[in-house]
Amino acid sequence: MWILRINMTDRSYQLKDVPKAYKLLGGRGLTSTIIHDEVPPLCHPLGPNNKLIFAPGIVTGTAAPTSARISVGAKSPLTNTIKESNAGSGWSPALAAMRIKALVVEGQPEEKGKFWMMSLSWDQAEGKPKVEFLAADEYVGQDLYEVYPKLFERFGKVNIAGIGVAGDFLYSNSGLVFDDLTGRPSRYAGRGGLGAVMASKGLKFIVLDPKGAPGVGIADKALFDEGGKKLADALRTADITKPKGALNTYGTAVLINIMNEAGGLPTKNFSSGRFEGAPNIAGEAIFEGNKERLGKELYNHACSPGCIIQCSNTWHKPDGTEHVSCVEYESDWALGANCGIDDLDNVAELVRLCNAYGLDTIEAGTTIAVAMQAGLAEFGDGKRAIELMHEMGKGTPLGRVLGNGTNTAGHVLGVVRSPVVKGQSMPAYEPRAVKGIGITYATSTMGADHTAGYTISPEILGVSGKTDPLSPEGKAEVSRAFQAATAFITDTTGHCLFIAFAMDIPSCFEGVVDEVNGVLGTRYTVDDIAKLGAEILRKERAFNEAAGFSKVHDRLPEFMKYEKLPPHDNVYDVPDETLDAVYGEL
Amino acid sequence: MWILRINMTDRSYQLKDVPKAYKLLGGRGLTSTIIHDEVPPLCHPLGPNNKLIFAPGIVTGTAAPTSARISVGAKSPLTNTIKESNAGSGWSPALAAMRIKALVVEGQPEEKGKFWMMSLSWDQAEGKPKVEFLAADEYVGQDLYEVYPKLFERFGKVNIAGIGVAGDFLYSNSGLVFDDLTGRPSRYAGRGGLGAVMASKGLKFIVLDPKGAPGVGIADKALFDEGGKKLADALRTADITKPKGALNTYGTAVLINIMNEAGGLPTKNFSSGRFEGAPNIAGEAIFEGNKERLGKELYNHACSPGCIIQCSNTWHKPDGTEHVSCVEYESDWALGANCGIDDLDNVAELVRLCNAYGLDTIEAGTTIAVAMQAGLAEFGDGKRAIELMHEMGKGTPLGRVLGNGTNTAGHVLGVVRSPVVKGQSMPAYEPRAVKGIGITYATSTMGADHTAGYTISPEILGVSGKTDPLSPEGKAEVSRAFQAATAFITDTTGHCLFIAFAMDIPSCFEGVVDEVNGVLGTRYTVDDIAKLGAEILRKERAFNEAAGFSKVHDRLPEFMKYEKLPPHDNVYDVPDETLDAVYGEL
Repeated sequence: MWILRINMTDRSYQLKDVPKAYKLLGGRGLTSTIIHDEVPPLCHPLGPNNKLIFAPGIVTGTAAPTSARISVGAKSPLTNTIKESNAGSGWSPALAAMRIKALVVEGQPEEKGKFWMMSLSWDQAEGKPKVEFLAADEYVGQDLYEVYPKLFERFGKVNIAGIGVAGDFLYSNSGLVFDDLTGRPSRYAGRGGLGAVMASKGLKFIVLDPKGAPGVGIADKALFDEGGKKLADALRTADITKPKGALNTYGTAVLINIMNEAGGLPTKNFSSGRFEGAPNIAGEAIFEGNKERLGKELYNHACSPGCIIQCSNTWHKPDGTEHVSCVEYESDWALGANCGIDDLDNVAELVRLCNAYGLDTIEAGTTIAVAMQAGLAEFGDGKRAIELMHEMGKGTPLGRVLGNGTNTAGHVLGVVRSPVVKGQSMPAYEPRAVKGIGITYATSTMGADHTAGYTISPEILGVSGKTDPLSPEGKAEVSRAFQAATAFITDTTGHCLFIAFAMDIPSCFEGVVDEVNGVLGTRYTVDDIAKLGAEILRKERAFNEAAGFSKVHDRLPEFMKYEKLPPHDNVYDVPDETLDAVYGEL
Repeated sequence: MWILRINMTDRSYQLKDVPKAYKLLGGRGLTSTIIHDEVPPLCHPLGPNNKLIFAPGIVTGTAAPTSARISVGAKSPLTNTIKESNAGSGWSPALAAMRIKALVVEGQPEEKGKFWMMSLSWDQAEGKPKVEFLAADEYVGQDLYEVYPKLFERFGKVNIAGIGVAGDFLYSNSGLVFDDLTGRPSRYAGRGGLGAVMASKGLKFIVLDPKGAPGVGIADKALFDEGGKKLADALRTADITKPKGALNTYGTAVLINIMNEAGGLPTKNFSSGRFEGAPNIAGEAIFEGNKERLGKELYNHACSPGCIIQCSNTWHKPDGTEHVSCVEYESDWALGANCGIDDLDNVAELVRLCNAYGLDTIEAGTTIAVAMQAGLAEFGDGKRAIELMHEMGKGTPLGRVLGNGTNTAGHVLGVVRSPVVKGQSMPAYEPRAVKGIGITYATSTMGADHTAGYTISPEILGVSGKTDPLSPEGKAEVSRAFQAATAFITDTTGHCLFIAFAMDIPSCFEGVVDEVNGVLGTRYTVDDIAKLGAEILRKERAFNEAAGFSKVHDRLPEFMKYEKLPPHDNVYDVPDETLDAVYGEL
């Protein structure tokens, strides 16, 4: 196994054996460790001393179900914290198949504005990966839906990581995009502005062709197979994850009605927890709308190889042709409910434009909502929201304001109700209505991030326990446990977060541990997982502290403490001491 | 003596006796104490819980020479730290004459976009100040050079504090402006975006009419008079401050040639310490240019009543009519050398526009330079710089980006070479060429601020000692001593910082201490001053810590550590430990 280092200052590269200390890591555990060990915490995120790191999960590239995640890490230009953002794509198993445990992009060309792409393939003769750099200027400034087909035509059946114009413009809202199973530029490591970090290094695409590569080594095949089977059985059994279950039928957008019912669906820039138009954009509406337009029921597909859950939907136009894939819950909410927009065709177009331009849908939607708050558009005006999205795509001054995310837009436009933590906008769960997720937002090492410790499971879905969403009681413990578990069990192993929905079936967790032990030859027990996760969080926290973050930054924005949120009409009342207890006792 | 509290939520007010703990304070000492005691450190600077505080210095309003400063404090929207910004104006003695030790503006109207002005006059019958609120919407969006004459016409001989369109737009670069001796809207408490704080409270102007007011009480008149005479003698003797001395002849812009010679004049967005066009914009060029255009020598005037130094210049057009007053060193540098502009008529027009729109010249100039770095204009293009200034005045999207200051503009435009500390741009002294001032920038409680601890005196001017500007040796001690002394001896007493130029004459410092003791009836010694100043710094530091700032934020931007600055070709090499020692040993 290797660490491949690319130096963009002179476009050189080094392939080195994985150091011992990194051998048992993968995914977020590895990206965060390398950042912790090598990136100066006070470096400018877009300067020459930041590093961009790609790492497949520990089991990624094997037959482990629902495990094709790629972790991308760097110091974030959006949050100025450490950042790990992950996506599901064939790109990750392709990197893993070439036995590259981490790809580290370093340096920065002197010449600004010139872009390169890197082609990484398997050299059969040498028995190792081969790197080539090619000029990429011809693709700069273009719609990714136009660029990706050109790249597939040029390179054949490859996997592509890339950035859109949002990256080219160095926006703090710019994602890293990976191809889905049919080559769409649609699977985003969206959060935290990692596209801008890649752009700052003059790198536009990374094209992988693993043909002939040996694949991931497995230390104990029998144990691994047993683990994979346990996990697969659990995923095929749990109501949420099973075939034709909630996710496979309605996609993640099944949460729209659930969260709306709970009064925790942030609406019109976090001014209410309930949206009158929610049913019109809910997962059920997507399923029914497709049925009407296609004349048949359409179940969802996988975003990446080997996924059992298969939750990715496709929205179709009135004539039955594809509009966009996929309208995730977060996208549907950010560009729908949070902007007061209840028309699925408008929401779908906004999602499509995010994919085309290289924007994170969450950050884009919360930013447009803040712009609406500032009076740049009426809440609910989908056409105007689409125009604002095009401003971002064109890089106009207004587009640059919006493209740099919610915090910056709120600052520039003078909006006090700016729903951000550590510079990153909140996702689709209202902390005033779901107290535990607010603890995760406040204390996560990543800024406001639901995936960092998804307390929604016990607070709303009744999975992994059941607690009152409106009560702060015991929530520091829940958030801490979820943050630690997540850091390892999904983000480091390479599994999708959604395996968590099957966690009430004991074999689910056990299966993952068996898989990991099978691949690594370790003897981790289920009880070790929280410790392994906590160790990752501690490294991330250490980086953030050295970058200037303390418990004072582990707070929700002030307005949530004095603005009452309908329908529950309460404020965010979790005491600071509770927030401090999350890491204080880690 | 009273504290006058205005609540803008319902436009009510309260006049209360000064609490005992505040009786010996004034100026910055008082604004920072009230903020420390009352403002929630994590409040949104433009939200309802911030407070805007005006406080004349301890001796302001008396006959103490060069002491008509007004301190304005709040949590800053530019830096998110505590902020005190001060200006010289007749407004301050007018407030003091009404025996108001602090005017505290609190609350926020529900209705957004509506503006009020407050009229404060002396009620002879009641023997106390009288407050009235009047609608101010008619003045919103206008050039302050047009508004101020209207206000003088309406209210007669009054003093006015106000905000321009930069405030109306809630820019983080928006100053509080006060009238000069001929009623120009030109004396700015410019730094830190305090105009936006005032605007966020729906307050556009504060009009003072102290007619009939009793004036400032003096406990020991003889001691006070003696102190005033000592100070006046010192100011009339020192080369820099004496009549027809350096400041009275060439204004503060006399520093242009001096700093250029030292290789410490930041040029073209901090890419060099020397500007080939410096002589064309230097104080000497202003003096000679005026002489040519007016046909006679013109010495400078006072910005405020009772000033002996009289350093405010006026630049004239080719036809001999006034263009603008005053072209300070900082303005001349920021809008001149730092933008590569060497034409005084362009610089003067840029200064005039800052006054007209309500912008801080330092922040405006450093922002335009960052915009030039981003390619929005060529360095040296004065006409284009003027256009960019008009964008700010019009509130276009680009104008809003620039109006929110250098840090935001650098972020939005993707410029890594962004010369800011804690969100505030550096003023006119290059830290790589003058190490001690870099320590002040890094560690000041205010963000990058030369006035917080003006080590330029010993490092460049040979006043209050003489040290090598390029050496870090002993500079933590110098910066610490200057920061502590400044916090009291000028910022709290109400004297102008420029009395420091006479500090090598012992009677200067003694005179100030005698004045203070005369007014307050205290028995402070010269040795007490550093302690009094340190106490203020500790309160400011405590606020900042609770607002999320630690020693990690006491750093210069990363680029100064790896980009070598001509002509000395060195980087900023003061060790972090030295920076930490400043407050570590306070």
